[in-house]
Amino acid sequence: MNTTFSSSANPPAPFAPAPDSLSRTVLDGILPVKTDLLAAAMEKMDGKTKPLGALGRLEPLAVQMCLVQNRLDPVISRKRLLVFAADHGITAEGVSAYPADVTAQMVDNFLRGGAAINVLCRHHGIDMKVVDMGVIRDIPAHPDLIDRKVAPGTKNFSRQPAMHPEEMLRAVESGMAVFLETQQKTSVDIIGLGEMGIGNSTSAAAIIAAMTGITPARACGRGTGVDDRGLQKKIAVVEKALSLHRPDPENAGEILCKLGGFEIAGIVGAILAAASRKIAVVLDGVISTAAGLVAWGLQPDVSGYLIAGHKSVEPAQAAALDRMGLEPLLDLDMRLGEGTGAALAMDIVDAACRIMTQMASFEDARVSGPAGTSEP
Amino acid sequence: MNTTFSSSANPPAPFAPAPDSLSRTVLDGILPVKTDLLAAAMEKMDGKTKPLGALGRLEPLAVQMCLVQNRLDPVISRKRLLVFAADHGITAEGVSAYPADVTAQMVDNFLRGGAAINVLCRHHGIDMKVVDMGVIRDIPAHPDLIDRKVAPGTKNFSRQPAMHPEEMLRAVESGMAVFLETQQKTSVDIIGLGEMGIGNSTSAAAIIAAMTGITPARACGRGTGVDDRGLQKKIAVVEKALSLHRPDPENAGEILCKLGGFEIAGIVGAILAAASRKIAVVLDGVISTAAGLVAWGLQPDVSGYLIAGHKSVEPAQAAALDRMGLEPLLDLDMRLGEGTGAALAMDIVDAACRIMTQMASFEDARVSGPAGTSEP
Repeated sequence: MNTTFSSSANPPAPFAPAPDSLSRTVLDGILPVKTDLLAAAMEKMDGKTKPLGALGRLEPLAVQMCLVQNRLDPVISRKRLLVFAADHGITAEGVSAYPADVTAQMVDNFLRGGAAINVLCRHHGIDMKVVDMGVIRDIPAHPDLIDRKVAPGTKNFSRQPAMHPEEMLRAVESGMAVFLETQQKTSVDIIGLGEMGIGNSTSAAAIIAAMTGITPARACGRGTGVDDRGLQKKIAVVEKALSLHRPDPENAGEILCKLGGFEIAGIVGAILAAASRKIAVVLDGVISTAAGLVAWGLQPDVSGYLIAGHKSVEPAQAAALDRMGLEPLLDLDMRLGEGTGAALAMDIVDAACRIMTQMASFEDARVSGPAGTSEP
Repeated sequence: MNTTFSSSANPPAPFAPAPDSLSRTVLDGILPVKTDLLAAAMEKMDGKTKPLGALGRLEPLAVQMCLVQNRLDPVISRKRLLVFAADHGITAEGVSAYPADVTAQMVDNFLRGGAAINVLCRHHGIDMKVVDMGVIRDIPAHPDLIDRKVAPGTKNFSRQPAMHPEEMLRAVESGMAVFLETQQKTSVDIIGLGEMGIGNSTSAAAIIAAMTGITPARACGRGTGVDDRGLQKKIAVVEKALSLHRPDPENAGEILCKLGGFEIAGIVGAILAAASRKIAVVLDGVISTAAGLVAWGLQPDVSGYLIAGHKSVEPAQAAALDRMGLEPLLDLDMRLGEGTGAALAMDIVDAACRIMTQMASFEDARVSGPAGTSEP
C-alpha cells in the first residue's frame, strides 16, 4: 500500500491572532495526526481476506481514519454536516446566474428540509445544521439554524477588501465556536462542510488563484451556470481583484480577508476546530476546498485530518487539492455545493472504517494466501 | 440534461432455447424500459432547487430509475446482492496468484459474515445471498447459501469448452431461478451481482476479448495480483483459447459456453430474470460486467435496466461497458469483486431516487431561478 499523509509542498506563513483568543487556543491545539499506528494499520489492512490493495481507495482511507482517531478500530458512530451561508458583495459585478436573494431562499429551503443536502443527510443519518454567517436578509429563528451573522454580506472585493480584518477574525472564530458547541452537545466522529452563497464560486476561484498561482482564467468555472459572457466577466473580476489587492500568496489570512466570504471564513474556523479535536473533516466542492486551503495555509498540520469528498466540476478545486496533496474520493460530475458531495463521501469513509473493524483476516477465516507465499 | 438509454452498437444474434423452457419465458418477458416518462422525469429533475445539471451523474441515474420503474417517484425499499461462486478449470494453467481452494474458503468466509461484501451489505442494509454454482468442494448447508451446483468447476477452456451446452443452459436457468425465487420470498427494488471464483478474471477477459474484439493483451489484467510472468501466461492462455475455439463474436451463448464460468452464467441468468421483472441491476467489476455483456448479447433490451456500479482496475471492463454504452458510477481503484463495488453503488442509486422523490422544486420552495429567465 502506498500511503502518504504529509502535505506535498511548503505551506504559507501562519497568521498570528491575539494570545488568549479562541483562534490562538484552537491553532495551538492542532497537532499532526499521530503516525505511531501507521505500520500496524497498514499491516492490519493487508491481512484482511482480499488480495493486497484490492479495496483500492478504501484502504488508505481506513488507514487515515486509524491515524486520525489513533486507534486500529476507527469508528464513525455519528456524523454531522454544517452548511455555512453568507452573501457576497461581488454579486454586484454580475458574476452569478442567480440573483443574490437566492442565498436566503435556499437557507429557507434547507430549514424546511427540501434541498438536496437535506435529502442526502437524511439518507445517511447525518445531523445537519445551517449557520447564517452573513446572509443579507434576516432568517427567522429555527432549531436547525445557528445565527452567527457577521454582517449582511461581504463588500465587493473587486473594489475593496471583502471584509475588515476584525470581521474575518470574528467569522473564523464563529466557525470554530459552532463546531465546538455542536460537538459539545452531541459529539460526532466526522464532519462534512458545505456552503450556500450566491457569488461564492468567484470568491473561491480568487482565493485559489491567489494561493496557488494559477491564472484567473484557469481558476474560474461556470459556478451555478453562467454563460460564456458571464464566465469572461468572472475571469475579468478575479483579474481585477488580484491586481488591486496583490495578496501575498504566503499569507492565507490576508487572502481570506481580501477575497473571501463569511461562510468560507466560517468553514476555515470549523476545519481548524475539528482538527484541534482530532475529528476527520470531509471537504465538499470548490468553495469548501478553498476554505480547506486557507485552513491549511494557516496551520498545515490540518492536512492529516482532511478528506477530499468529491471532484467538483469547478476547475480551481483540483489546484487546491493538489496543493494540499489530497485526491477526491468521488467523481460524479457534481457542482451543487451545499455539502452534497461531502455527504455522499462521508458514507464511503464510514464504509472504510467498517472494513477495518469488521472484515476477517486470512488468519481468522483460515483462507489461503497467494500460492508460493508464506501467508497463511 | 444529456441522457441516452439506447445501447450504442448492434447487439449479437440471440440464442434460442426450447419453446417452453424457463430461459424462453424469461427472454420473451424482457421489454425495453418504457420511455413514456422520459420527458416528464427530466423536467421533474430540472425543476428541483439546484442549477440545471448540478447533481451530475445522480440526475440521469434518477431519470433511469423512473424509466425502469415507470413512475416519477422511483423508490428503493429493499436491496439484494447475490454472490455467485464457482471454480474454474483454467486455474490448471497457473493464471491466478491464489490456489483454487480459496473459492470454497471465501464462500465459507461469506457465510460466516467476514468478507468485505458482508461488511458493505450490512452497512447498507442489503440482503445478501451466496449461490454455489460450481464450487469444487461441497459447502455445508447454510441459511444464506443457495445450492445450484452445476458441476465441480468448469473444464480448462484453453484445451476444451469450459462447459457443455446443457450445463450452460442449466447454469443460466439456475441464475434465473435464484433471482425469481428470492424475489418471490422478499421482493427487492434493485439487485447487485457479485462473484467469487479463483481464475474467473481470465474467463471474463476471454469473454470480453471474444465479444468486443480487443486483443487478449489489452483484455488481461492482474486479477488477484499475478506478477509479470503470471500476466504473460494469462495473455497466452486467452490467445490459445481464442484460436482453439474461434468463437463467433455475434454468438454470446457460444462464447459463454466455451469461455465462461458457472458463476458467470448464473449472473447472466439473474440479469435476464431481473430485467424481465423490470428490476434495476447493478453490475460490479470485470467478471460481473462480462456477464452483463453476455446477457446484453442474448437480449439487448436489458441495457436500460443495467447500471455500471464501479470502474474496475481490470482493463477489459471498460471495453465491455463501452460496448453496452454504460459508464461506471464509482472509481475507487477497486478490484476485489464479490459485489463490493456494486454494494457501494447501490447506495448512490438509492440516493438518486431520494433526490427525485424528496427534493423540493423551485415552485414548492419559492426559490428564484436564474436571473433574466422565466423560471419561477
